[in-house]
Amino acid sequence: MLEDVLTPVRWKDDGVHLLDQRKLPVQEVWLVCETWQAVADAITQMVVRGAPAIGITAAYGVALAAKHAPDGLAQAFDGLAATRPTAVNLFWALNRMRAALADVPAGSVEATALAEAQAVHLEDLAMCRAMGDHGAALLPDGARVLTHCNTGALATGGHGTALGVVRTAYQQGRLAHVWVDETRPFLQGARLTAWELSQDGIPATVLTDSMAAWCMARGEVDAVIVGTDRVAANGDIANKIGTYGLAVLARHHGVPFYVVGPTSTVDLACATGADIPIERRPDREVTHVGDIRLVPAGVPVANPAFDVTPGDLITAIVTEQGVATAPFAPTLTAHVAQAGHQRSTID
Amino acid sequence: MLEDVLTPVRWKDDGVHLLDQRKLPVQEVWLVCETWQAVADAITQMVVRGAPAIGITAAYGVALAAKHAPDGLAQAFDGLAATRPTAVNLFWALNRMRAALADVPAGSVEATALAEAQAVHLEDLAMCRAMGDHGAALLPDGARVLTHCNTGALATGGHGTALGVVRTAYQQGRLAHVWVDETRPFLQGARLTAWELSQDGIPATVLTDSMAAWCMARGEVDAVIVGTDRVAANGDIANKIGTYGLAVLARHHGVPFYVVGPTSTVDLACATGADIPIERRPDREVTHVGDIRLVPAGVPVANPAFDVTPGDLITAIVTEQGVATAPFAPTLTAHVAQAGHQRSTID
Repeated sequence: MLEDVLTPVRWKDDGVHLLDQRKLPVQEVWLVCETWQAVADAITQMVVRGAPAIGITAAYGVALAAKHAPDGLAQAFDGLAATRPTAVNLFWALNRMRAALADVPAGSVEATALAEAQAVHLEDLAMCRAMGDHGAALLPDGARVLTHCNTGALATGGHGTALGVVRTAYQQGRLAHVWVDETRPFLQGARLTAWELSQDGIPATVLTDSMAAWCMARGEVDAVIVGTDRVAANGDIANKIGTYGLAVLARHHGVPFYVVGPTSTVDLACATGADIPIERRPDREVTHVGDIRLVPAGVPVANPAFDVTPGDLITAIVTEQGVATAPFAPTLTAHVAQAGHQRSTID
Repeated sequence: MLEDVLTPVRWKDDGVHLLDQRKLPVQEVWLVCETWQAVADAITQMVVRGAPAIGITAAYGVALAAKHAPDGLAQAFDGLAATRPTAVNLFWALNRMRAALADVPAGSVEATALAEAQAVHLEDLAMCRAMGDHGAALLPDGARVLTHCNTGALATGGHGTALGVVRTAYQQGRLAHVWVDETRPFLQGARLTAWELSQDGIPATVLTDSMAAWCMARGEVDAVIVGTDRVAANGDIANKIGTYGLAVLARHHGVPFYVVGPTSTVDLACATGADIPIERRPDREVTHVGDIRLVPAGVPVANPAFDVTPGDLITAIVTEQGVATAPFAPTLTAHVAQAGHQRSTID
């Protein structure tokens, strides 16, 4: 099943293969990680990005450690957990791997770890398809949607979250056009989302982030659809920097604002968005593109990786369990409980 | 007087010298234009940009034509007018040169043209300083302002329009910090505004355009100050793409939104922003930075140079004549009349 889908992470005999997303859209290069340390480094360096894909990759990292260095598993868990502080899926996937391996005899650790990592991957793909179905039902026929960053197959086990909704709507013949924010500073929209959509033949136009308001004012956006790295219990969300501004613009123009993420992204222990730590990324992402300097040497720059969008600017949050609207807390809690029930049934 | 200020345009014996702003912030290169055609090409290629600087440059272009090809003056006027369709200052400066040369005997054309171009330049500098005084009076002590694009010395004859307000407030000891939008796609904020501010030692931080909302939500912006390429009679303005989104964000966060431009930018013949033609710039500005491809080949991009901000999102429009607030039409009309009166007195 995994062989047939576009996925940025593949387990092979020689290690974990990762599509190096830093080289897209110009080159399609696969990086082979033979150790969990190489996997951790790849996550830190954003070879792989997107909360679900990071979780899957970390799970395969544990499987690598179980194969080659079963005595050092605790170190592998710690090292993989330290790569990206905002990605709750990372911790979720590692906790799941830890639980699966807790009472396993030494001789079965390797096989159990791989089976569990592959289950994490396949379930993510199934969840994306479920989100696609729930989210596409919210869109009008002939929808023109605007999206930010990359939340597609490249960010997940396949299909995508917010972009999975776009993909499903397109497959249903109900999507007319996608406006793709380029998503500075790392340009995931221009480089990755545009690449993915062109691979699938989905009509798309790339905008600089500063053009989104212009596009909405012209009446050419029927919905904004974004992913999320973390959802607080009250429906506040953290997502790629620029998301919050889009939510304000959408509200001003009367455009629905949809957030799409699996229940593993929902952190009920986080009461509100104020509790979500915001990762600061290196200055160089802002000061340079490749080796080209954009900002004079010595001038400070800001580079928060994420911003927080309050729930009151969000029309609906779509998970694999369904659609949550305000007040978000009861429905999100129910989605998480339902997801936990399904998972324990699968286990 | 012009020798002492940072100005991007200088008349010298061998031609018009233009600071090549496409090479900043890495290199400071001056381009020498020996013909009006070279001047026109430099304007088209954005060697020089910013409405006032374009007008001054075009005036010097006419002076070059008067010096070297006085029989071809009509062609020079047409060729220079065709360079940038949205820059009303361009047409204003050319009309002024045409009027100055209308009844001049052949032997005086060269000297008259140069004197008029230099007068255009010096008056622009004086107007910028007047805008600086009017605008700075609107800011609180210790102001933290956010600006977009480059509206500084590099965009004018010197000092700047919106950035002239920043510069004056800083000189008065009343400015704490400047947030500089990088201003995709051409990155005038990152490359030019940050360079200018660092030359003057004014504290500044560069943001990607998508970080402005985050910055406002943190309560770190006391005012947004932008320039304008054209002001309609009702107070709608056209300015660099991204301006309109900032105005919406400022309104949402209760932050004052100030527009700064000389009366030559006010086009009373333009009733509303809907009448302002929007220039579409080449795709390559969006698809590439230098030779680095950001967008996959074959994927469409949008590249409107400007957007329109409705007057009802604008707190005040500052001209060299003073401060206009809503309803804008009577005050803008008075500013234009007063400016015309002053100019005819000078003439």
